[in-house]
Amino acid sequence: MAIEGSKEEGRAPRIRLGMVGGGAGAFIGAVHRMAARLDDQFDLIAGALSSTPEKAIASGRDLGLDPSRTYSSYKEMAIREAKLKNGIEAVSIVTPNHVHYDAAKEFLKRGIHVICDKPLTSNLADAKKLKKVADESGALFILTHNYTGYPMVRQAREMVADGALGDIRIVQAEYPQDWLTEAVEQTGSKQAAWRTDPAQSGAGGSTGDIGTHAYNLASFISGLELDSLAADLDSFVEGRRLDDNAHVMLRFKANGSEKPAKGMLWCSQVAPGHENGLKVRVYGTKGGLEWVQADPNYLWFTPFGGEKRLITRGGVGAGAAAARVTRVPSGHPEGYLEAFATIYSEAARAINARKAGEAVDPAVIYPTVDDGVKGVAFVEACVASSRKNGGWIKL
Amino acid sequence: MAIEGSKEEGRAPRIRLGMVGGGAGAFIGAVHRMAARLDDQFDLIAGALSSTPEKAIASGRDLGLDPSRTYSSYKEMAIREAKLKNGIEAVSIVTPNHVHYDAAKEFLKRGIHVICDKPLTSNLADAKKLKKVADESGALFILTHNYTGYPMVRQAREMVADGALGDIRIVQAEYPQDWLTEAVEQTGSKQAAWRTDPAQSGAGGSTGDIGTHAYNLASFISGLELDSLAADLDSFVEGRRLDDNAHVMLRFKANGSEKPAKGMLWCSQVAPGHENGLKVRVYGTKGGLEWVQADPNYLWFTPFGGEKRLITRGGVGAGAAAARVTRVPSGHPEGYLEAFATIYSEAARAINARKAGEAVDPAVIYPTVDDGVKGVAFVEACVASSRKNGGWIKL
Amino acid sequence: MAIEGSKEEGRAPRIRLGMVGGGAGAFIGAVHRMAARLDDQFDLIAGALSSTPEKAIASGRDLGLDPSRTYSSYKEMAIREAKLKNGIEAVSIVTPNHVHYDAAKEFLKRGIHVICDKPLTSNLADAKKLKKVADESGALFILTHNYTGYPMVRQAREMVADGALGDIRIVQAEYPQDWLTEAVEQTGSKQAAWRTDPAQSGAGGSTGDIGTHAYNLASFISGLELDSLAADLDSFVEGRRLDDNAHVMLRFKANGSEKPAKGMLWCSQVAPGHENGLKVRVYGTKGGLEWVQADPNYLWFTPFGGEKRLITRGGVGAGAAAARVTRVPSGHPEGYLEAFATIYSEAARAINARKAGEAVDPAVIYPTVDDGVKGVAFVEACVASSRKNGGWIKL
Amino acid sequence: MAIEGSKEEGRAPRIRLGMVGGGAGAFIGAVHRMAARLDDQFDLIAGALSSTPEKAIASGRDLGLDPSRTYSSYKEMAIREAKLKNGIEAVSIVTPNHVHYDAAKEFLKRGIHVICDKPLTSNLADAKKLKKVADESGALFILTHNYTGYPMVRQAREMVADGALGDIRIVQAEYPQDWLTEAVEQTGSKQAAWRTDPAQSGAGGSTGDIGTHAYNLASFISGLELDSLAADLDSFVEGRRLDDNAHVMLRFKANGSEKPAKGMLWCSQVAPGHENGLKVRVYGTKGGLEWVQADPNYLWFTPFGGEKRLITRGGVGAGAAAARVTRVPSGHPEGYLEAFATIYSEAARAINARKAGEAVDPAVIYPTVDDGVKGVAFVEACVASSRKNGGWIKL
Repeated sequence: MAIEGSKEEGRAPRIRLGMVGGGAGAFIGAVHRMAARLDDQFDLIAGALSSTPEKAIASGRDLGLDPSRTYSSYKEMAIREAKLKNGIEAVSIVTPNHVHYDAAKEFLKRGIHVICDKPLTSNLADAKKLKKVADESGALFILTHNYTGYPMVRQAREMVADGALGDIRIVQAEYPQDWLTEAVEQTGSKQAAWRTDPAQSGAGGSTGDIGTHAYNLASFISGLELDSLAADLDSFVEGRRLDDNAHVMLRFKANGSEKPAKGMLWCSQVAPGHENGLKVRVYGTKGGLEWVQADPNYLWFTPFGGEKRLITRGGVGAGAAAARVTRVPSGHPEGYLEAFATIYSEAARAINARKAGEAVDPAVIYPTVDDGVKGVAFVEACVASSRKNGGWIKL
Repeated sequence: MAIEGSKEEGRAPRIRLGMVGGGAGAFIGAVHRMAARLDDQFDLIAGALSSTPEKAIASGRDLGLDPSRTYSSYKEMAIREAKLKNGIEAVSIVTPNHVHYDAAKEFLKRGIHVICDKPLTSNLADAKKLKKVADESGALFILTHNYTGYPMVRQAREMVADGALGDIRIVQAEYPQDWLTEAVEQTGSKQAAWRTDPAQSGAGGSTGDIGTHAYNLASFISGLELDSLAADLDSFVEGRRLDDNAHVMLRFKANGSEKPAKGMLWCSQVAPGHENGLKVRVYGTKGGLEWVQADPNYLWFTPFGGEKRLITRGGVGAGAAAARVTRVPSGHPEGYLEAFATIYSEAARAINARKAGEAVDPAVIYPTVDDGVKGVAFVEACVASSRKNGGWIKL
Repeated sequence: MAIEGSKEEGRAPRIRLGMVGGGAGAFIGAVHRMAARLDDQFDLIAGALSSTPEKAIASGRDLGLDPSRTYSSYKEMAIREAKLKNGIEAVSIVTPNHVHYDAAKEFLKRGIHVICDKPLTSNLADAKKLKKVADESGALFILTHNYTGYPMVRQAREMVADGALGDIRIVQAEYPQDWLTEAVEQTGSKQAAWRTDPAQSGAGGSTGDIGTHAYNLASFISGLELDSLAADLDSFVEGRRLDDNAHVMLRFKANGSEKPAKGMLWCSQVAPGHENGLKVRVYGTKGGLEWVQADPNYLWFTPFGGEKRLITRGGVGAGAAAARVTRVPSGHPEGYLEAFATIYSEAARAINARKAGEAVDPAVIYPTVDDGVKGVAFVEACVASSRKNGGWIKL
Repeated sequence: MAIEGSKEEGRAPRIRLGMVGGGAGAFIGAVHRMAARLDDQFDLIAGALSSTPEKAIASGRDLGLDPSRTYSSYKEMAIREAKLKNGIEAVSIVTPNHVHYDAAKEFLKRGIHVICDKPLTSNLADAKKLKKVADESGALFILTHNYTGYPMVRQAREMVADGALGDIRIVQAEYPQDWLTEAVEQTGSKQAAWRTDPAQSGAGGSTGDIGTHAYNLASFISGLELDSLAADLDSFVEGRRLDDNAHVMLRFKANGSEKPAKGMLWCSQVAPGHENGLKVRVYGTKGGLEWVQADPNYLWFTPFGGEKRLITRGGVGAGAAAARVTRVPSGHPEGYLEAFATIYSEAARAINARKAGEAVDPAVIYPTVDDGVKGVAFVEACVASSRKNGGWIKL
C-alpha cells in the first residue's frame, strides 16, 4: 500500500566472483549473472565458461572479462585465482550436475566460497563427499535453490514457523512442466540432452531437475523433515532413459504435532499446459496456504473458520521475513530473477560477515550443502522406491 | 457468443417419483428435489422421508405430499406404491449409505426405477448383491455421481474420446474440503456424525464421501479403467474413526497407448481453504486439460505446442456432448443444481424410452450400478492398501 | 464450510402462473420457466406464448399446457383467466420490450400480478404510464432484474448498507458482450434483430439491453441514487440503428457522505472476449469490493489497511442477506438460473403475503416498477446526453 | 516451452551514468539503479543525489560512488562531468516533476543523454520548452514510461499493428491504487507529500502520477492518437489539493478504420483493494485483448469467433517484439524491474548506436520527449475539461 522507498542496502565493496560453466547459449549461466548483478554485491571478473578453449575465450570476451582471467579449465582457474592478490573470493558453478563435485572441491579447498547450482551432484556418494569437503574447507557453500528467495515463500515459511497454520498435517507439492512431452533430446535440444542423460544428470530425470525443487520448497516452507517416501516413476517418452514423470507419497517426521504430517509430490516434464507449474500447499490444524511460482507475489492464506485472504509481497499482510528480501512496493511484481538475486544477496551478506569476522545475521537464509545432500538423497530414494514397486524408503 | 434460444425439451408426461430419506434438515434430499424439478420431468408424489413417523409426516406436509402417500417405512412404500394404479414409477434414495442396499432392493424387485445417492453401499459385498438385484430386476438404476452432469465435464470426456489429448499418460484428481478440520462430529453436526461413523458410511470416510467422486470423475473423463492403487490414509482428527485424508497413487489399465497411464488422487476433509475443491487434470501426448468444480463453466485446454485456451459452456469451443446438457447461453453460469438436474433428466430420458419400448439414445449418459460397484471397490482397495502400508491393490 | 442442510422452505400452495411470450426458440421464456419451477412456488398453467396461433398452440403443447388455457392473444388470456375460478394469479411477460406496457396493463387492471422482463418498456412515457397503472392496480409488479437475485450481490448490498465500505466514493460498472461484433441482425439472428430494432427495443441498444442491468446493479449494491450522467454512444457496426457501445460518466446524489460519489459505466456488445462480462466495483473510505457475474459465488472485499479477502456464497463471511437466498452449501456453485429463481421466490413470498393479508417480510427484495422507470430513464438520458455531445443530463 | 538459453547480449563497454535525485529513502531512484544494472550496460559513477549536501554525500557513499563525483547540485555536476575525460555520457533524472525541466536542460545542452522519469514536467509550457531543448541538443532523451518495457505489452502492440484485432473500436484503460485513501500527505509520507503538492507535481494528481501511464500505455498498445477527452476529476480526500480520482472518456483520431475508436480511462489513488491496478483492454473488429500489470507475463487474446487464449511471455504464442526483450524462459516470471531494465537497455542500444555513428535498430523502442509532451498535455486537458464540467477538450 505504501511506497515509502524501495530497498537498497548500503554497499560493501563488491565481492570478486568467478564462474564455471555458463558460456554462450546456456540458460542458467546468464540467470546467475543477472542475479549477481541486480543488488550490486558482486563483480564477475573471471570465468571458466566452457571446457572448449575457443568457446571459453569467446564467452569471456562477450562478458567483458579480462582475457587473462578467462580459463578453459576450472582447476586452472582455481589454482591461479587463489594465488592472485585480487583473485576471486567466490565462484558460481553452473555446469551440468556431474561436474559439480569435482569443480566445487577445487575452489572449496582453496578457501574460495562456492555458489552452486542444484542438484548438488549426480549421485549421493559425491554429495556426501562434497559435504565433507565443504564442511572442512572453512569456505561457504551456497546452493541455488532459487525459489527459496521469493518473498512470499519466506512469508509462508514464517507463518508456518509462527504457528499461523497450527500443527501441520498435509503438504502438497507439485512441479509439472511440458517441454519434454516429445523426445526433443533426440532432435537437437542441448538443454534436454544433458537433462535426460544419466551420465550427466545422475539417476533422476524430472525428479532431479525439478522434483528436488518441489521437495526442497515443501521442506523449506513447512519446516518438516522427510521421513520416508513411496514413488512411482515413469519414462513416458519412448527411448527416454530417465524419469519424466514421478508420483511420490511423503511421510514426514513427527514435529511436536499430534500426528506426523503426510504429503504428495508430483513432478512431470510431460504435462502439456504447464510451463513451470511449481506449487506448494500446506495445511494445518488452524489454516492452509497456497503458493504458485508463476504468480509469485501472491500468497493465499485461509485461517480455519475465516475467509480466504490474499497476502501480497510488500502488502499489509506481509511480515518481516518477506520484507527484508523485498525490493519494490506491492503491486509492482518481482519475478524469478529477483528471487534468484536474493540468494546471491544472502550469500553476499554471509560472505561479508565472514570477511568481517562477524557472525552472520540469523535472518540470512540460503540453501546449504546439507540441503543439497538431502536433495540428492531424495532423488535416489525416489528411484529406489520405484524400483521396489513403490515400497517405502527411509531418507 | 450467440444467445439463440436456451434449451428446453418438449415434455413427456412427468414421471411419478417417490423419495426415501431427505426429510427436514437434510442436505442432499433437498438437492435431489430441486434437481428433479428443474427440467420438469418428474412429479414428487410419495415419500418415506424419515423413519421417525412424526418427522416423516411433517416433512411430507412441508413438501405438499398427499398424506396418504407419506410413509415412515420404505418397505411399506414400495409395497403400496407398487399396487397403486398411479403409484410411483421411480424412487430417489437419499439416505446414509448403509440403507441404500436394503431400500433399493425393495423397489427394484417391484420394477420401480431407482435413482440412488453415492456411494452405492457401505461395503463391497452389498454393492455386488445390489448389482445382481438391479441387473435381474428389469428396472433402471441411476447413481447420482452428479458431477458427471456438468457440461464441461462432458466436454472434457468428449475431447479425450475424440483424441484431442492423444494417448493419455497422466491423471491428477483431487477433492479437498475443510469442514471436518475439527471434530464437529462430536459437537452436534448430524452431517458429520453419519459420515464419520463406520456403521453408516462403511470402511471409508473421506474416501467414500468424496474420494469416490474424484475417482469416478477421473475415469469418466479419461475413459480409463483403474488397474491398481497404493494408498496412505489418515484420520488426522483425534478420535475420528474413519479416514479424513487420503493420498493415492493410481495405475490404469493399458488402453491402446504406448504405456499405461498413471495418476494421483488426493481427497481430504481437513484441508483449510477448500470448500469443495474437486479438480481433475488429464495429460496426454497431444495436450492437457483441467477442470475445477467450483468454476464449472470453464474448461482449460492446452494443445501441446499451442496456447492455453479457455473453453466455456455454451461457447464456441464446446461440442455436441456439452451442448445437449446446456440450458442457458455462455456467460451466464450454470451450477451444481443444473448438473444434478442433468442426471435426473438423463434418467428421465432413459425411463421414458423404456416406457415407450424404445432404445435409449446412445448420447444419454448416467452413472450406473456398475459405477457404484467400482466406487465401493475403490474405497475398500484404499483401506486395504493403507492397512498393507501402501502396497498395491488390484481393483 | 458446514453443510448442515440446504435450504428449502415449506411450501404454500403453488401460485397459478401464466406467461406472455416465450414460445419455442425463445431464450428468456425458458429461463423464466426454469426459474419459476426451481423453488416449486409456481404452476405454469396458461400461456399466450406467441401471437401466431399455430405457434402458440404448439408451444403450449410442448409445455404440457391444457389446450383450453393456450391463447394467441394476451388480452384474451387476461380476460378469460380473470373470470376463471382457478385462473392465473400471476403472469410472466417475456416479450420484446415494446409489448410490455400493453400486455402488463391488461393483467394489472384485472388484479393479476405481473412479473415482467426488463427493460420495463421501450420508452419513458410508456414506463411512467405503466407505473401509474401498476400503482393503481393493487396488484404486484416484479421486474426481473435477475442479477439482484445472486446471493453475493445481496451480500455486497448488505455490506455497503452496514457501513463496511464507509462512505462510498466510486462506483465502476461494466457489462461488455461480444455477440454483436458483426452484423448478425442482418443474417438471420432473431435475438439480434429485435434488440437492434428501435421499434421493438426503444431508443437504446446496448444501453437498454445490458446497460440497464449494470446501472440497476450499481444502484442496488451501492444504495446510491443517480443524479446525472454524461454519455458517449456508438453504433460501431455498419448499418446498426441502435448503440452497440456506450461510455458513461456518472454522478450520484449526496448520501450523507463528505462528497457525492462518482462512477463510470461501460456497456458494449462489440467487445470480443466477453460473453456476459457484468462486473460491479464499489469503493468507499473504508474498503472496496468487486463482483463479477460470470463467477457469481465470489465477492472480493478489501478493508482499507487489510488484506483482500474472498467471501463465498454460503461461506463464513457471508451474512444474513445472502444466506436467505442461498440454496446449497459453499463450494457447490449456484448460477444464473438460481439467481433468476430467487426473483421468482421473492415474488412468491410477496404474493403469498398479499393473499394472506399479511405484510411482506421486509427482508424480501425484488425490483419494482420504480426500478423499471429508472432504467428506461437511464437509457433515454444516455441517448440524450450522447446527442448533446456528452453533456450532463439530470435524471 | 523450450528453455534453450536465456538472453544476454554481448556487451559493449558500459555507458558512464550519473543520477540526479534518488538519495536515501527514495523509491524510484533505487528502481532506476537496479534497472540500469540488470543488463550490465551502465556504470553509475556520479550523482547529485540530493540537494542537501550531507545527504548527497551520504547517499553517494552508500552507493560506492567516488566522493569526487558526488555533487549536491545537478548544474555543478553537468558542468564538471561535461569537462571530464571520463565524464558521464548519460544521466538519470529521478526528482519530483517540477525539477525535470531545469535539470534535463543542463545535461542536454552539454550533449549528455537524459533518461528522465515521467511525467516529463509539471506543466505543458515547460514540456514544450524541454522538447525544444532536447530536439536541438543532439543528445538522446528517454522517458521512463517503464510499463512499455514489459514483453507482453510489446506483444500486444505488435498484435494490434499486425492486424490481429482488426480495426480498433474500443480502448479501456485503468490504473487504480489505494495508498492515498486517507490523507497520508498530512501525516508524514514524503512520497505522498510531493505527489499531492501542485508546486512539485503540477496541475494533476492521480492524472499526472498514474493517469499518464495508463494513457501512454493505451496509445502504445493501440497505436492510436488521442483526439479529445472529457474528464470528471475529484479530490475525495478532505484537504487534498490535487485530483485523487479521474474519470475520462476518450475519442481517438481516425486511423483508417470504419469509425474512430473510443475509450475510457480511470485512474484513482483512493480505490481500496488496488495496489497498482494498471490494466489495458483493446477491442477491434477481429478480436480483443487484455493485459494486467500485476500479472505481466500473461496476455489474454480472444479472436472473435474463437476461444480465449493465454499468450505467455516466452511461450509459443509470443512473437518477435516480445522475444527481443525477454530474458528468461516462459513460466519463470519477469517483473517490474525487468521491464524497467528494458527501457534502460533500449536506451543503451540507442546510445551505443549513436556513439558508433550507426542508425538505431528500428526494433528499438523507448518513450521519447514527444511522449512526454503528450502526457503533460493529457494531464492539462483532463484538468481543463473537468473545470469545464466535463466538456470535450482537443489534445
